[in-house]
Amino acid sequence: MSQQRFKIFSDPVHGFISVPKNVIMDLIQTPEVQRLRRIRQLGVGHLVFPGAEHTRFNHALGAMALMQDALNSLSEKGTSISPEEQTAALAAALVHDIGHGAYSHTLEHELIDNFAHEDMSRVLLAHLNERFDGALGLALDIFDDAYERPFFHQLVSSQLDMDRLDYLRRDSFYTGVAEGEVGVQRLLKTLRVHPLQGGAGSEVTVEAKGIYAVENFLISRRLMYWQVYLHKTVLAGDQLLRAALHRVRDHHLHAGGPTAECIRRGSDALLFFLENDIGLDQIGEPRIRTAYCQIDDTDILFSLKQWMRAGDKAGDPVLADLCRRFINRDFFRVTFLSQDPNAPQVEQWRSRVADWLVAQDLAAEDTARHDAAYYLTTDRSRHTAYQNQSEMIGILDREGNVQELSEMTDTSMVSELTDFVVKPYVCYPKPVAIDLNAVPAA
Amino acid sequence: MSQQRFKIFSDPVHGFISVPKNVIMDLIQTPEVQRLRRIRQLGVGHLVFPGAEHTRFNHALGAMALMQDALNSLSEKGTSISPEEQTAALAAALVHDIGHGAYSHTLEHELIDNFAHEDMSRVLLAHLNERFDGALGLALDIFDDAYERPFFHQLVSSQLDMDRLDYLRRDSFYTGVAEGEVGVQRLLKTLRVHPLQGGAGSEVTVEAKGIYAVENFLISRRLMYWQVYLHKTVLAGDQLLRAALHRVRDHHLHAGGPTAECIRRGSDALLFFLENDIGLDQIGEPRIRTAYCQIDDTDILFSLKQWMRAGDKAGDPVLADLCRRFINRDFFRVTFLSQDPNAPQVEQWRSRVADWLVAQDLAAEDTARHDAAYYLTTDRSRHTAYQNQSEMIGILDREGNVQELSEMTDTSMVSELTDFVVKPYVCYPKPVAIDLNAVPAA
Amino acid sequence: MSQQRFKIFSDPVHGFISVPKNVIMDLIQTPEVQRLRRIRQLGVGHLVFPGAEHTRFNHALGAMALMQDALNSLSEKGTSISPEEQTAALAAALVHDIGHGAYSHTLEHELIDNFAHEDMSRVLLAHLNERFDGALGLALDIFDDAYERPFFHQLVSSQLDMDRLDYLRRDSFYTGVAEGEVGVQRLLKTLRVHPLQGGAGSEVTVEAKGIYAVENFLISRRLMYWQVYLHKTVLAGDQLLRAALHRVRDHHLHAGGPTAECIRRGSDALLFFLENDIGLDQIGEPRIRTAYCQIDDTDILFSLKQWMRAGDKAGDPVLADLCRRFINRDFFRVTFLSQDPNAPQVEQWRSRVADWLVAQDLAAEDTARHDAAYYLTTDRSRHTAYQNQSEMIGILDREGNVQELSEMTDTSMVSELTDFVVKPYVCYPKPVAIDLNAVPAA
Amino acid sequence: MSQQRFKIFSDPVHGFISVPKNVIMDLIQTPEVQRLRRIRQLGVGHLVFPGAEHTRFNHALGAMALMQDALNSLSEKGTSISPEEQTAALAAALVHDIGHGAYSHTLEHELIDNFAHEDMSRVLLAHLNERFDGALGLALDIFDDAYERPFFHQLVSSQLDMDRLDYLRRDSFYTGVAEGEVGVQRLLKTLRVHPLQGGAGSEVTVEAKGIYAVENFLISRRLMYWQVYLHKTVLAGDQLLRAALHRVRDHHLHAGGPTAECIRRGSDALLFFLENDIGLDQIGEPRIRTAYCQIDDTDILFSLKQWMRAGDKAGDPVLADLCRRFINRDFFRVTFLSQDPNAPQVEQWRSRVADWLVAQDLAAEDTARHDAAYYLTTDRSRHTAYQNQSEMIGILDREGNVQELSEMTDTSMVSELTDFVVKPYVCYPKPVAIDLNAVPAA
Repeated sequence: MSQQRFKIFSDPVHGFISVPKNVIMDLIQTPEVQRLRRIRQLGVGHLVFPGAEHTRFNHALGAMALMQDALNSLSEKGTSISPEEQTAALAAALVHDIGHGAYSHTLEHELIDNFAHEDMSRVLLAHLNERFDGALGLALDIFDDAYERPFFHQLVSSQLDMDRLDYLRRDSFYTGVAEGEVGVQRLLKTLRVHPLQGGAGSEVTVEAKGIYAVENFLISRRLMYWQVYLHKTVLAGDQLLRAALHRVRDHHLHAGGPTAECIRRGSDALLFFLENDIGLDQIGEPRIRTAYCQIDDTDILFSLKQWMRAGDKAGDPVLADLCRRFINRDFFRVTFLSQDPNAPQVEQWRSRVADWLVAQDLAAEDTARHDAAYYLTTDRSRHTAYQNQSEMIGILDREGNVQELSEMTDTSMVSELTDFVVKPYVCYPKPVAIDLNAVPAA
Repeated sequence: MSQQRFKIFSDPVHGFISVPKNVIMDLIQTPEVQRLRRIRQLGVGHLVFPGAEHTRFNHALGAMALMQDALNSLSEKGTSISPEEQTAALAAALVHDIGHGAYSHTLEHELIDNFAHEDMSRVLLAHLNERFDGALGLALDIFDDAYERPFFHQLVSSQLDMDRLDYLRRDSFYTGVAEGEVGVQRLLKTLRVHPLQGGAGSEVTVEAKGIYAVENFLISRRLMYWQVYLHKTVLAGDQLLRAALHRVRDHHLHAGGPTAECIRRGSDALLFFLENDIGLDQIGEPRIRTAYCQIDDTDILFSLKQWMRAGDKAGDPVLADLCRRFINRDFFRVTFLSQDPNAPQVEQWRSRVADWLVAQDLAAEDTARHDAAYYLTTDRSRHTAYQNQSEMIGILDREGNVQELSEMTDTSMVSELTDFVVKPYVCYPKPVAIDLNAVPAA
Repeated sequence: MSQQRFKIFSDPVHGFISVPKNVIMDLIQTPEVQRLRRIRQLGVGHLVFPGAEHTRFNHALGAMALMQDALNSLSEKGTSISPEEQTAALAAALVHDIGHGAYSHTLEHELIDNFAHEDMSRVLLAHLNERFDGALGLALDIFDDAYERPFFHQLVSSQLDMDRLDYLRRDSFYTGVAEGEVGVQRLLKTLRVHPLQGGAGSEVTVEAKGIYAVENFLISRRLMYWQVYLHKTVLAGDQLLRAALHRVRDHHLHAGGPTAECIRRGSDALLFFLENDIGLDQIGEPRIRTAYCQIDDTDILFSLKQWMRAGDKAGDPVLADLCRRFINRDFFRVTFLSQDPNAPQVEQWRSRVADWLVAQDLAAEDTARHDAAYYLTTDRSRHTAYQNQSEMIGILDREGNVQELSEMTDTSMVSELTDFVVKPYVCYPKPVAIDLNAVPAA
Repeated sequence: MSQQRFKIFSDPVHGFISVPKNVIMDLIQTPEVQRLRRIRQLGVGHLVFPGAEHTRFNHALGAMALMQDALNSLSEKGTSISPEEQTAALAAALVHDIGHGAYSHTLEHELIDNFAHEDMSRVLLAHLNERFDGALGLALDIFDDAYERPFFHQLVSSQLDMDRLDYLRRDSFYTGVAEGEVGVQRLLKTLRVHPLQGGAGSEVTVEAKGIYAVENFLISRRLMYWQVYLHKTVLAGDQLLRAALHRVRDHHLHAGGPTAECIRRGSDALLFFLENDIGLDQIGEPRIRTAYCQIDDTDILFSLKQWMRAGDKAGDPVLADLCRRFINRDFFRVTFLSQDPNAPQVEQWRSRVADWLVAQDLAAEDTARHDAAYYLTTDRSRHTAYQNQSEMIGILDREGNVQELSEMTDTSMVSELTDFVVKPYVCYPKPVAIDLNAVPAA
């Protein structure tokens, strides 16, 4: 048997991660994967949880490490896995999120219309496969769910995949939110590959004894959403960052003068996307792909630091203020609402903000109503912990039958987790007293 | 201000625990509290989770340490707490479970009729108060919920008390069951004392921002019940230990001969309780209290090791076998049933066991049916994570109103946690093939 | 390839431990190994570190788990290991300490003259090998260092073996003494098997990049000795326990009367060793081996609890007091001395103790000097972290040469660790004021 | 007593950190402190330890939290601390490292001649004190060691200060290098303030029982230096980053043309320092201070990403290559040498590198020797764990005398730690085979 060599990474979450010195190590050394080192996993989350500066690179390594553990566990239980499948599955786990852009989810829909990072992951994986002379073909098939053993795809992307297991464990670790802790190794030990009913292929299931661990996983996921990913201050940071980019897009791309010069000192790759109306159908084009890969968190931060100076002289004090607030972490307030506000209500609130902008010398009387739209935004948080409509988690009972999770548990708790929870909210400057209860006629 | 001195205990769960060198340290040095060092927290749990040998002493210290943290947190939020109250609350937390006997819950109902360990805790606390010349009077009032500030009692005993917070955290730590991990410090930081509606006294509530941490606590508690406390192998160990004691009680207390001599080599304090029909009303009597305090896990183990030899010569091979099985961890099997078995079903199963006993030379033909009752037992596990009928967890919203937890959460998950889950089971020797589905007419 | 099945143990230190369901699992189920569940790893250590109730069973599993990891690491680096060798090495790691008796090191020299637990481990392993029809033959060869590949023996027993790696990590974990933490996985990743100079066989070495991890291991070991294993209060507990057994041996084995009856209520297996002068040469005899295996911590504790009552009526108040002190953790004081005290000094101290015993009504005037010898003892703690005289730790440099550790490190720190540190001490009742500096003429 | 309010930060290392809502919270919200969020604690360390992306902001909070714990511990032992002193000490701990620049130690000596970050910390603290109308005056005195109770300064800056305790613990946590773990809480519990011999003021000492914890701290510090801070790949990253900046400084600041334009797209604040020869004596000037505070890791990364394109057309392929290597983590190799290389040796090596540069089309024949100096560098790592010459760690024995640590310990290990270890090394492209042993005549 040929000797496989490994490079060891020290990871505070999983301990030591062994990376085989084959195409997997080559993949890690590509600029596309190295770029993930400059994209924080939690977008603006580190501004609320100061320990959570971890990057998508670290998460990609972690998902790959869990894939190794999962395959070892399945092997021990009798599922044969060839070396080629092993390598392909590791590669697919490693690059599953390679399409994420700067500030991850915060800016996912800002640069490209109708964008979804999975599509870009697909584009980049296909491109790397070409560069690697097809060595990633099986990984691509697994990614596309086109491989004859669908359980590999499920390990890469499903309701209970290596991505989710790693990010919950990792984000819990770095934020210090202990409640999000998931018994990852316990879960992996209970995985079993089982023939699909009907006969074509096989699926990943969880042995009945792992049912509490799965429940706990779903509940931890729900908790991490509301406590971390959708934390009110995180939402406030998201809104602020988007407002700054909107301001540039709306006002400064086609203007001249000293402000335009200041804007131009920002990242040109970022400006390229703000200036051009790029659509999802274009992401396969080399120049779009290349420009996309040039952007990381650095570009956003550097640009905002430049644009903080846009208020000097006859500039744009609104943009300068938004940027300064983001850089110095002087966020707006987010308040959840019992229902979506109607348009007159939002208008009323914005006029209060407009008055305040004028009083602060940030806006002129005539533009203040317009400018207020960058300061007061409304949106909705929505989350469901377990989408059993689209894709179920199968539990394998002692008789060898697979049942959907919510049919197996003792309480109906799990089925509650399948509900979508939607929380409308408003984001606005703290000093402005808006009356959240006064509802003008629609 | 007088300088308070501390003794430091190193605790792997909470780090360093500071014990004030006053009545609290004196209390720790009493034989009654030191005895808790010889009672394992999880009864037979360590036979399933080999790391979980931790004792009730360690838990008592931990509950006291969390009480300190809780009182500090409440103080920071403006609730004034006098030094006397502080000491009394620490004492009450420390001794809340002092009435537990050998093997904790496993034998709770074996030695004294209608026993509940809380009653014995009360007896021992009152007795210690006398020995300490009344220095524990306020602690006793808090324990009895007779103190004018009821929130102290709630911290000692309620749906969200220091006992539960410590044991979940600690048992999760020592068993390695990560899913049981509770964000204890986060929870303590969100506690608030709030005036009771109606005006008399005040209660402990949780600030709205702690709601996910409370949910997680309840869910962790449920998970620890089914994964650890009511683990099938733990139940099997419980049944085996009880069967051995039943065998002694039923057969050997009034007999003579060599077996009786062997039995007498067991713990005399244990034999005292097996021989005499002690009732709950007698636990206050000094000789009962004293005898009770002489028993710890050592007595049980030592007695079983003696009784393993009861099968030599013309002895009781059934008792010897039961004891040997417990000492060498050769447990029976537990299988959960979809419903309670009826009497004919149990009879049928027992006759299979009887045949097996005869074949094994463990029983004679004529007594085998009787003996089988020590080998095949039926019982029910039952648990509810949150008994909001008897006692609610109050959430304090931003407007200063207190609502019951299940009315506040986003999903109806919490109300599901209030359901009682009951699981009937049968415990029997693995080699005996009983047909769990064959249901004879009742 | 035949499918290997595993039983999973949850271990808080190493996570999940997979035990192959072959002779290894059978071995775990023997009474000899199960008995380790009733022997605390740290003897009286749990009376100082309340979280450290962990047993030798847990440690045995842990050493076996690290052996698995070590063999995997060596395999990855090209050392071929056959399935038979793998099983034998796991078995040897599992039972390496099976010969330990009740209270581990505390009583190691009390029951059998010139005893060393390794000799008893050897006896028990040979006995088990017979019971298993020779299936442990290779394990026995590895234990005896009689196998042709000596590196297996080194992994079981050397300056850097699985035993030490597990116990340091585990004892650090359970005591909460973070400084004892060793980077076990890092160390295992740097192990390498290297041909012995001269050519016969091969040895375990550490790659040069692991040198700091080895240093840290030695320093942690030194620290755990002085902070935990030889902690002054632990030494005080050791002395007290030994004093109680000495008292029984010296006074009560050949006497009659009510005290003798009380003594007889203690463990008969323990009394067997106290009564008979068993020597190391006899440990292979079946009746000695059997009696030895009947004793565990339970026997000691149960006996002491019985003997606490020896002071009633016309009994032995000294014995009762010593036992009561141990059970209620009312230890003597230990003070380190700058040099060994001379005999007149000890005599002088003992006469102070004798006066105190009389004043306490614990001894009569005429026997007090004799009795004082149970209350004031002198001894020495001695430890060296690295015995490079007897056995070296070899470091493999990049050129493929092996050098002894202390020749490779940057500072001469390591060679300092090879010095023996010896600390004389005296143990005596706290209320007795003895003058440690007054030195009578020798 | 006035109610103090706190803001809670969740920190994975210390749990929850409570920040008083007074001048401390105001300080945290300044741009100067927020800027630390954009400076990684370990410079290029995250490129070797992928989990170690933590920032100087996180460390500053941690050092402040440990100061709280230390002051609480000293208070419990009778040292009175006024609220003003408490606030000042927290402030001083928080800003002790505020003068660090982008990439921390890597670039410490690149931007300003003879720079030391402590001097800049002093400048910024003085400036903030002005902005806060003198509210930081006492903090400034403590920082300057001008306060009458010198132990406060020692807690901020000494051989055993809150800075070191936090960074060792934190860097160990995030790198996953367990050996660096220090028992911080244990150490803090053993601190004692003791009157200075001679009488003026008082100093921080460690109680004798903490001596092993201090030793462990020193040894951990030594280990973290060689395993993490001076890890060979970290040194390689340091050299590469410096080489890129040197290249810009040497070649591009006064040139024109397309490359100059590309250079200008880098951070102007960074370019300001590269262009002007700023000396330590100027750092108090507002424009220097302001420019310095504009630079963080973002500026470096963004600039390098721009300068990667300097190789297009008639540009500088050397600069482009250096930048690309840093961004894509394609580092040179570092090899330690047994002694400093002499000049002819370095020349010889560089000529090999020059040949390689020509072969790679990175340099022309006539400039290759010059360009090789950016590709092959020599330097020395040096470290001592304990500088007892300049500043001792005092141990307080039971008789109340203070002795220097190395006089108290059992072995002479500590005195070994005071030696300076110096390791010369050479850093060069991996494909170039240089003969490290061939020594040309000097």
